[in-house]
Amino acid sequence: MLYLVGLGLSDETDITVKGLEVVKKCARVYLEAYTSVLLVPKETLESYYGREVIVADREMVESNSDEILRDSANVDVAFLVVGDPFGATTHTDLVLRARELKIPVSTVPNASIMSGIGACGLQLYNFGQTVSMVFFTDNWRPASFYDRIKENREIGLHTLVLVDIKVKEQSLENMARGRLIYEPPRYMTVGQCAAQMIEVEEDRKEGVCTKDSLAIGAARVGGKTEKFVCGTLEELCDADDILGPPLHSLVLLGRRSHELERDYIREFALNKENFDKIWEADYGKQQ
Amino acid sequence: MLYLVGLGLSDETDITVKGLEVVKKCARVYLEAYTSVLLVPKETLESYYGREVIVADREMVESNSDEILRDSANVDVAFLVVGDPFGATTHTDLVLRARELKIPVSTVPNASIMSGIGACGLQLYNFGQTVSMVFFTDNWRPASFYDRIKENREIGLHTLVLVDIKVKEQSLENMARGRLIYEPPRYMTVGQCAAQMIEVEEDRKEGVCTKDSLAIGAARVGGKTEKFVCGTLEELCDADDILGPPLHSLVLLGRRSHELERDYIREFALNKENFDKIWEADYGKQQ
Repeated sequence: MLYLVGLGLSDETDITVKGLEVVKKCARVYLEAYTSVLLVPKETLESYYGREVIVADREMVESNSDEILRDSANVDVAFLVVGDPFGATTHTDLVLRARELKIPVSTVPNASIMSGIGACGLQLYNFGQTVSMVFFTDNWRPASFYDRIKENREIGLHTLVLVDIKVKEQSLENMARGRLIYEPPRYMTVGQCAAQMIEVEEDRKEGVCTKDSLAIGAARVGGKTEKFVCGTLEELCDADDILGPPLHSLVLLGRRSHELERDYIREFALNKENFDKIWEADYGKQQ
Repeated sequence: MLYLVGLGLSDETDITVKGLEVVKKCARVYLEAYTSVLLVPKETLESYYGREVIVADREMVESNSDEILRDSANVDVAFLVVGDPFGATTHTDLVLRARELKIPVSTVPNASIMSGIGACGLQLYNFGQTVSMVFFTDNWRPASFYDRIKENREIGLHTLVLVDIKVKEQSLENMARGRLIYEPPRYMTVGQCAAQMIEVEEDRKEGVCTKDSLAIGAARVGGKTEKFVCGTLEELCDADDILGPPLHSLVLLGRRSHELERDYIREFALNKENFDKIWEADYGKQQ
């Protein structure tokens, strides 16, 4: 049996009781460690589970999944995923491959950032499609997120923006020379995300995510040090120190916001006076 | 401290290790039992936790929340919620009230149907806003869901439809006579939901959810007996026997579906020939 086990959002104790029982009985335990990360290192998980944990990087999962599935028609194999196992596309692939090989699959769900973000006080019912934001480079600034956010905004919905993480990345020079030397991991911050949104807005000028658009910056959702701030995108550009270490996410507010949502998020406002002024002018319009 | 603890989707072992530790140490433990239910009775939870669990019905949570919060500035109180604590609006209210009373609040996230539905193989990124479907009566047939689904469909997105549950409901006669006698709980099925969607479509005729629209019926998501079927809304009207007992949910497919999604859900098709024909004609259009 292949078990896909969600680990939740924060530390080793966010696994479910059911998930922990699975991990303890499996012959091999893999940890998917490139679409998201927990706030604790692999060694903490190993000592908590009393088990060796094999890190599965993108290459292994996408190009060598048969190694993960090896012999799992006969022995139990656990594939651990931060958040919920079906948060990322990759794992659907793994299940499809297991189906081809007639390997039974069982899933242990857990909290995902897609639902955990509800802790910021915005109603999950009022979210449109989720978008991803990658690190811009000098010659690669993909702006497809802008069209998606625009679709959400036109019907008044919030948008969860998941920000890039880069783990096990090679520098161009090391890649060119074939040296398997990896750069330190990089985690996009709310400030970087907000700045890139404003940059694309200044190019497109369709009023989708302006300097004055309200948003929530979220850090370490579901963890003991969870932190939310609320402000304009311009204010959020400079709020990384308040938010603290990764992982970050951002929510751009939709106009169809409810007063209950306002009451909840106002507590997180960087500047309550500014928040009230902008809310009054632009938000809380029931459609 | 007030702890909001998510219980996940299925049985007593879906609580996280962190959540179980909280439940064991709290002075009082409440179970919110009206926006959703686990697949096991309260008594199973009590024996698993080794603790008394107080059922909090809608009236208690909405009108008498100060009883739940009583003394929680000094002792720890746990409020257990099926799924994730922020899945339902009600609990935002409870936190706002705790804030007023200067009671610290801590949240233990868990799987929610809003993310757990990803197990059906449709990508969470491709979902628009979530809608609710209530039991229609002779003179109450709210159709606001139709407009919301229409918004999602127009931009090609999937829609999760959460179906009604009725617990602790009085009959009109018992209510009129002031008798506190409650009807047996009722859980809407995928078949009932699909039939109501078709009914409203036949009235509105905007092509939002026709007999031939593809959808997924989901039962007991996250549980050992989890079951998915895929078919047209008309086919799903008669698939309740295949799906089995509650809880059910439905996903109406959006047209911006990916081939990987098709490959995954085709396995669940009630009629693969029909599925292929409709998919080919109407779905898989990248926008």
